[in-house]
Amino acid sequence: MPLVKSRVQCDIDFDRPGRQAAFLRAPNSTNTSGWGTVQIPIFVLKNGVGPTLLLTGGVHGDEYEGQIAISRLAQTIKPEDISGRLILMPSVNQPAALNQNGTRMSPIDGRDLNRCFPGNPTGTFSDMLAHFIDSAILPHVDVAVDMHTGGHSAEFALCTVMHAIEDLELRRKTLAAATAFGAPFNVIFSGVDEGSTLTSAIERRKILCIGTEIGGWGRVSLEALRIGERGIRNLMQHLGMTAGTPDTTQKSGGPGTRHMVVPNPSCYSFAPSGGLFEPCQLAGDAVEAGQVAGFLHFVEDLDRAPVALHYQASGLLWAACGPGRVLRGDCVAVVMQSYE
Amino acid sequence: MPLVKSRVQCDIDFDRPGRQAAFLRAPNSTNTSGWGTVQIPIFVLKNGVGPTLLLTGGVHGDEYEGQIAISRLAQTIKPEDISGRLILMPSVNQPAALNQNGTRMSPIDGRDLNRCFPGNPTGTFSDMLAHFIDSAILPHVDVAVDMHTGGHSAEFALCTVMHAIEDLELRRKTLAAATAFGAPFNVIFSGVDEGSTLTSAIERRKILCIGTEIGGWGRVSLEALRIGERGIRNLMQHLGMTAGTPDTTQKSGGPGTRHMVVPNPSCYSFAPSGGLFEPCQLAGDAVEAGQVAGFLHFVEDLDRAPVALHYQASGLLWAACGPGRVLRGDCVAVVMQSYE
Amino acid sequence: MPLVKSRVQCDIDFDRPGRQAAFLRAPNSTNTSGWGTVQIPIFVLKNGVGPTLLLTGGVHGDEYEGQIAISRLAQTIKPEDISGRLILMPSVNQPAALNQNGTRMSPIDGRDLNRCFPGNPTGTFSDMLAHFIDSAILPHVDVAVDMHTGGHSAEFALCTVMHAIEDLELRRKTLAAATAFGAPFNVIFSGVDEGSTLTSAIERRKILCIGTEIGGWGRVSLEALRIGERGIRNLMQHLGMTAGTPDTTQKSGGPGTRHMVVPNPSCYSFAPSGGLFEPCQLAGDAVEAGQVAGFLHFVEDLDRAPVALHYQASGLLWAACGPGRVLRGDCVAVVMQSYE
Amino acid sequence: MPLVKSRVQCDIDFDRPGRQAAFLRAPNSTNTSGWGTVQIPIFVLKNGVGPTLLLTGGVHGDEYEGQIAISRLAQTIKPEDISGRLILMPSVNQPAALNQNGTRMSPIDGRDLNRCFPGNPTGTFSDMLAHFIDSAILPHVDVAVDMHTGGHSAEFALCTVMHAIEDLELRRKTLAAATAFGAPFNVIFSGVDEGSTLTSAIERRKILCIGTEIGGWGRVSLEALRIGERGIRNLMQHLGMTAGTPDTTQKSGGPGTRHMVVPNPSCYSFAPSGGLFEPCQLAGDAVEAGQVAGFLHFVEDLDRAPVALHYQASGLLWAACGPGRVLRGDCVAVVMQSYE
Amino acid sequence: MPLVKSRVQCDIDFDRPGRQAAFLRAPNSTNTSGWGTVQIPIFVLKNGVGPTLLLTGGVHGDEYEGQIAISRLAQTIKPEDISGRLILMPSVNQPAALNQNGTRMSPIDGRDLNRCFPGNPTGTFSDMLAHFIDSAILPHVDVAVDMHTGGHSAEFALCTVMHAIEDLELRRKTLAAATAFGAPFNVIFSGVDEGSTLTSAIERRKILCIGTEIGGWGRVSLEALRIGERGIRNLMQHLGMTAGTPDTTQKSGGPGTRHMVVPNPSCYSFAPSGGLFEPCQLAGDAVEAGQVAGFLHFVEDLDRAPVALHYQASGLLWAACGPGRVLRGDCVAVVMQSYE
Amino acid sequence: MPLVKSRVQCDIDFDRPGRQAAFLRAPNSTNTSGWGTVQIPIFVLKNGVGPTLLLTGGVHGDEYEGQIAISRLAQTIKPEDISGRLILMPSVNQPAALNQNGTRMSPIDGRDLNRCFPGNPTGTFSDMLAHFIDSAILPHVDVAVDMHTGGHSAEFALCTVMHAIEDLELRRKTLAAATAFGAPFNVIFSGVDEGSTLTSAIERRKILCIGTEIGGWGRVSLEALRIGERGIRNLMQHLGMTAGTPDTTQKSGGPGTRHMVVPNPSCYSFAPSGGLFEPCQLAGDAVEAGQVAGFLHFVEDLDRAPVALHYQASGLLWAACGPGRVLRGDCVAVVMQSYE
Repeated sequence: MPLVKSRVQCDIDFDRPGRQAAFLRAPNSTNTSGWGTVQIPIFVLKNGVGPTLLLTGGVHGDEYEGQIAISRLAQTIKPEDISGRLILMPSVNQPAALNQNGTRMSPIDGRDLNRCFPGNPTGTFSDMLAHFIDSAILPHVDVAVDMHTGGHSAEFALCTVMHAIEDLELRRKTLAAATAFGAPFNVIFSGVDEGSTLTSAIERRKILCIGTEIGGWGRVSLEALRIGERGIRNLMQHLGMTAGTPDTTQKSGGPGTRHMVVPNPSCYSFAPSGGLFEPCQLAGDAVEAGQVAGFLHFVEDLDRAPVALHYQASGLLWAACGPGRVLRGDCVAVVMQSYE
Repeated sequence: MPLVKSRVQCDIDFDRPGRQAAFLRAPNSTNTSGWGTVQIPIFVLKNGVGPTLLLTGGVHGDEYEGQIAISRLAQTIKPEDISGRLILMPSVNQPAALNQNGTRMSPIDGRDLNRCFPGNPTGTFSDMLAHFIDSAILPHVDVAVDMHTGGHSAEFALCTVMHAIEDLELRRKTLAAATAFGAPFNVIFSGVDEGSTLTSAIERRKILCIGTEIGGWGRVSLEALRIGERGIRNLMQHLGMTAGTPDTTQKSGGPGTRHMVVPNPSCYSFAPSGGLFEPCQLAGDAVEAGQVAGFLHFVEDLDRAPVALHYQASGLLWAACGPGRVLRGDCVAVVMQSYE
Repeated sequence: MPLVKSRVQCDIDFDRPGRQAAFLRAPNSTNTSGWGTVQIPIFVLKNGVGPTLLLTGGVHGDEYEGQIAISRLAQTIKPEDISGRLILMPSVNQPAALNQNGTRMSPIDGRDLNRCFPGNPTGTFSDMLAHFIDSAILPHVDVAVDMHTGGHSAEFALCTVMHAIEDLELRRKTLAAATAFGAPFNVIFSGVDEGSTLTSAIERRKILCIGTEIGGWGRVSLEALRIGERGIRNLMQHLGMTAGTPDTTQKSGGPGTRHMVVPNPSCYSFAPSGGLFEPCQLAGDAVEAGQVAGFLHFVEDLDRAPVALHYQASGLLWAACGPGRVLRGDCVAVVMQSYE
Repeated sequence: MPLVKSRVQCDIDFDRPGRQAAFLRAPNSTNTSGWGTVQIPIFVLKNGVGPTLLLTGGVHGDEYEGQIAISRLAQTIKPEDISGRLILMPSVNQPAALNQNGTRMSPIDGRDLNRCFPGNPTGTFSDMLAHFIDSAILPHVDVAVDMHTGGHSAEFALCTVMHAIEDLELRRKTLAAATAFGAPFNVIFSGVDEGSTLTSAIERRKILCIGTEIGGWGRVSLEALRIGERGIRNLMQHLGMTAGTPDTTQKSGGPGTRHMVVPNPSCYSFAPSGGLFEPCQLAGDAVEAGQVAGFLHFVEDLDRAPVALHYQASGLLWAACGPGRVLRGDCVAVVMQSYE
Repeated sequence: MPLVKSRVQCDIDFDRPGRQAAFLRAPNSTNTSGWGTVQIPIFVLKNGVGPTLLLTGGVHGDEYEGQIAISRLAQTIKPEDISGRLILMPSVNQPAALNQNGTRMSPIDGRDLNRCFPGNPTGTFSDMLAHFIDSAILPHVDVAVDMHTGGHSAEFALCTVMHAIEDLELRRKTLAAATAFGAPFNVIFSGVDEGSTLTSAIERRKILCIGTEIGGWGRVSLEALRIGERGIRNLMQHLGMTAGTPDTTQKSGGPGTRHMVVPNPSCYSFAPSGGLFEPCQLAGDAVEAGQVAGFLHFVEDLDRAPVALHYQASGLLWAACGPGRVLRGDCVAVVMQSYE
Repeated sequence: MPLVKSRVQCDIDFDRPGRQAAFLRAPNSTNTSGWGTVQIPIFVLKNGVGPTLLLTGGVHGDEYEGQIAISRLAQTIKPEDISGRLILMPSVNQPAALNQNGTRMSPIDGRDLNRCFPGNPTGTFSDMLAHFIDSAILPHVDVAVDMHTGGHSAEFALCTVMHAIEDLELRRKTLAAATAFGAPFNVIFSGVDEGSTLTSAIERRKILCIGTEIGGWGRVSLEALRIGERGIRNLMQHLGMTAGTPDTTQKSGGPGTRHMVVPNPSCYSFAPSGGLFEPCQLAGDAVEAGQVAGFLHFVEDLDRAPVALHYQASGLLWAACGPGRVLRGDCVAVVMQSYE
């Protein structure tokens, strides 16, 4: 007879007006602290009438812009500033966020939290945490933004992301929300390993959900942070939670977000072997099928010529992956195309 | 009676005209290979009369642009293209370069090779390798370029670097060589932990020496690679090893390299504690003493306000350090100022 | 069609009179021993008529007093000394017990065995072991004592422990057994992470179950060992397995065990951040709500004042946790109060 | 609602005639490559009419002979050479095969892939891979050979292996196939930890299945490789996939395979404690119950006499385990006896 | 030509009156922070005329009482409170003190800092730090107290410690200082591995030096902290740095410190093999040569009797070592005897 | 003023007649045992007049035959059996010998003890141990045998080994001793990394020294053990320490040892890249320059043909290296040739 309720404790009363700041306490027995807990900050602000918006950052510990944007919001916004309810989780994967200089994977169980949904209350730490978010947080939510970046793996053309949701009405609303967010791009894609991600879990509950991919290379991008913080403000206005009109002007001069799509596997390029990868374009650049995407150098060999990797689809470079040295099977480029 | 000669084997005859490509074989006894060796590529090209230029890349395994530039040169240049001698070591710290996706530190002994000079033939692997380079390679060299980047720690304003060499004639020649290299900046500085670096070892032997800091954030920068490859071509022309005139035009529109200096410790900013660092400027931006350099966020806490860190010197931001989460004592910014 | 029967082998015939000493053989495939096994000692003694008493030690490898007490008993008691059946497992979590100087967690899978019940025959090593104990050992048992200490995490006021069992008749019998055991305290509590512990698994099977928390700080406490060994003798007398009357006199002069309770979360104190924790009371001391429980020192900082942590409930200090340096979220104190 | 379909991608069309060579792409999110994949080679050759034969090697990464034999076959055999279908997976457990100098266990999750069947699409990497093989590959298969060796744990008398299959017709066919394979021995056994192995998964699907145990001691055995490569040729002839008659002559002069059995646990000897194990016989030697199997030496002690370990069954030494130093519970010898 | 000056930076002006609080900055190049530093707090207070007293804590990171006592002093004492100069280093081995829950060894180089003196400016991190303390701090010092505990290895009878200094005048002064400190015991001993400790380095410079061994078992002892804090106050009074008379009354009722000695190796007991050690006395108890010091239990075996270990010298138990499970060669007890 | 005398303690009186069995106690401070020691068995037997013979085993922890042979000798030989002095160290590198299932490298410092001679009393653990052996043991020795095998790296044709000693008289005596030892081969070679080995340290002291290379592949070879034990008996007879005549008959039918030489680097073959190595000959087989030594397979690739590696010298295969998967730079074969 296994456990079914979560072992994570949380004192938040989601129905109470005003501001609450608390820690989720997730038990984490270790060699030096048998009754230790991992403390995960959560903030809930409730005022008047309006939707519930969940903002999550740091699902991967080394994706910083969302953590900064949501943490700053949590420390500055007041209940009276909004109509509706805000649930803010600036740094969900605390063990990964505090690990060394920030890592994608949880140091407790070596898992990627964003491959553990909908989770398991008696599984590993990441399983348990995923289960709590899915079963105890998501039922309160109308709209969710899960903020990601390229981490140490890649730099993305600044964008919101969404899946090709089957429910057309929800898809329409999601496109509208992404348009309001106002990133340079909004990308409709079906990711590697979908189904076990947080955004998949959100969608299964018919909640309006967008993600972001802003920044990367394991550093904080100033422009990505600007887009992320503006996007949150824009979205709250779009949802009627705050007054004002979204500002979606683009640096490129365009009036707003370009909608893109990653239609099929030919948009992905993988490294056929390990090597030192020299890319030939930047994220956002136009690329042609057949064009050289980069060279794989073998600096450990004497006279082994570099191998040229080619794009297999035309469009814009969405993800500039391959942080220098790549391993065999690593993704080195993803191309996006216009969404009609 | 300890050993004094190197345990590293190398079949190169430095005096032979033409092209030689070989491995240094550095012994590395391990649990599964008692007589194993680490193979480090070295290329020597000799033709006619002229100086000996040593190019080294990958002294830190996660600094990629130099590795690519020198490896490409080694595979394409022919002896008849030059007057003099080229010694090319594209990826000096092979164990670090091949470690995971590339690391700064050697996985064999956990040391930073660039803190091990002049080395020790009976020390750890990095000590042994440093000693071989110092004692067996440097005596053949007239001019050396050691190509670095910010690795995973930082992004630098694209630059060559040099120390404030006491021998004024050598300093003048070094400035001239850096000017010919033609990076946007040339920075005269006294680094953290000087004396145990490769460039310090080169200078102790009265060899003309410049370094580079091009790129960073653990990825390959296209512009940094362009500057690095052009710089090598420029320098060979400057030294009379190849025909032609250095091209030092700058993207900024300027005619050439700006000479800068990091005069004292007030140019460095360190993190007073661990946290998530949000920088406020990009490498190359103008900054003022007292200006906010960035904010240290505490996304693990409920209501702990961010801490603002301020510049203590005015100038241009040379090193944008602090890749997201920083640890206490990490360098987060270095400012450079105009040289005269 | 996954496996459902245990992969652990055990040659014990639980119905055979006399003494049997054997190893459980739990398969453990490793890089150097594909068909290796972990050997876990088990002793069964059966004679005449009487209940079956299970004694378990070393469920956490660094909790030593139970291991010593049960091991000594196993080597000295003879079948003719008892009426009924004794099942002795002195050191259940062998991989943890033999790991370095003893650790709480299993080195094989990094799990806390006492968070893995009722287990899973095809899960990790700890899952498999928990499943065997639950499904193959517990069905033979009438009364169980699971002997714990504070391990490296804490020192407890010497006590037996039990849960607030819903079946009132079983609760009454458990209180009587704990009274007979005769530790200074008997504590009724609902632990962190209940449900997945061995004692929870025992209770789900309606078996009379008590635990102990005797000793801690990662060392063997002479007084804790004395209480533990006396308690086992007392309990066997109470159950009619051996002749004689329990001796429950206390060093404090009291006639017997004080029954205590940990009624709610306010009895627990957690560290709000990492630091060096200086406690202000010893386990067993009387404390008042609002009193300073200890100071969190920041010896890594220059002028950051210590933070005082306060008790939130009055009573006696049950668990003096926080072994010097604590991590954020670590439990540092638990208070117990009189029962009734 | 957890995932049920595999996250592993494979572009093979199993019904297409001719030769296909492709990678299985198994997602493997890591700190430096969030969208990374593990690439596992698979070759399918189809021609005319005939059974489907699956050959798998490298289920344990440090078992080399099968990897070499199947890889060589995959690179040399042509569709027109066969009647039927060949599915070749030379190196199934790629992460283990490429780990250091090859390891038994997967470096990704620390699991033994051959204890993970029938797998789980949302479990660890090894679980996911086992599930894919079981659910996406096996349904295409009529006959399977899973090629193992003693790895670093043991050396086996060169043999095929099979279980005592309950379906007598299938058992008869399996014996015939093993006879055709023509290894010196064919051993019917019930392994440690059966049920979770690949061969168990194959048998559950009523597929004719044989294994091999050829070689060991962590090195490539020339004779084992010869037997393995000949056995594959023999089996294809036996199945009518290629022309010709199996050659089963033995070095011993015998005409063919000796069928053996490991009837019960008395055939296994385990180390009662850690020590340095000196065996007294080679794999294949005749042994008697009561004979000394080897000595456990305690070279860390001053005057502790070696402990003699004795065989508990007579027969031939099948597995010479115990690679020098053994840990307590390690298997040191397995005896086989004549079948019938 | 290796480096000879320290690479550690320190802005303290030791001759400046008043209070200075600063960090030593020790360079520590890592994979994610090439120019990172370790920050070690140092406080200097100078006023009027008087000796210079150095107090060091945390040379081993898991020895807490000294760290707390000196940190508290550093935050509360004012220059005007003293005559002379105080140099306070509350937590010398910062990397070890901040490692997990505190460790003895440095996580940077795996070394015991207290086995690295007099150090080496170009050695490992611990070598470099030892060299800085020896060469840059000690020359300013007249009297030094290095505060230790039993860490995770042992509990000591609360004491100061000193060596049998050859200079009789210095020995007399040291005995007087220890008497003033007022711990229950003062122990004259020649440690394991002397010569490479900080106190040995201090003595080589003819500085009056005492150590402490107060507390242990990896926890903070309230009584040990009381003795440590009182001892510092007492010593400053004894040296004339503050007004007042030392209070050396003992809990035992005695008027002051008992002087003891560990005259020879027979006072040490080592574990002949690994096992679970049950001690029979507490630190401070009287013991006799030949008496049982404890039992080594083999809870992993079925019928292996415990081994009794005996004292080889009479006296009082100084160090109760052997934290539960011991490894072969571990020290389990040290006996002290009356001095004179 | 650094330490110069060894920190290792040893109670042996080398001049005392009779048998002494003792532990060297080498201090090893760890996180859980600050005053811990590593205990290394040493046996000294002295009787009458004769030379001093030192036998060392286990300098690499995973080389087992020497450990068994010397340990057995130490437990069975009596002083009255010999004339002269025997110093027996069956398992020199105890930390490596007891590490997991035995490793070549020391787990304490990650070093190869046999690359640390003549050692350093204040260096790492291996440095300290090498220094003790060189400075405290070797001065007592006339003849030394250091017993090695191929460990996990290789299998050698069973042999004694020696260097081409410059002192011709000593070379003659060494050849005579090797002839008396009676292994199938005696090989004169100049190893990888000579100078820092134990045998080099022995030779520097003008002591007659032979090594062995018997066995390998990380297992105990029965024939190698037989040769090793017989060789020790033979050598003692040759030296006049025991009565009798050496028995040097060979399985091959030859009358005695064949003397061989490894004259130059062309005898060594290295792997040009990582791969799965299939050898084509066994140790002892005759090989020709130009013949295929083996194939490097790339089982991770789809259609990459194996690479054939060729011998560059003719002779007999001395070392069959390359245990399955090799890393780039690993030695895969060494050829020996007839000596004169």
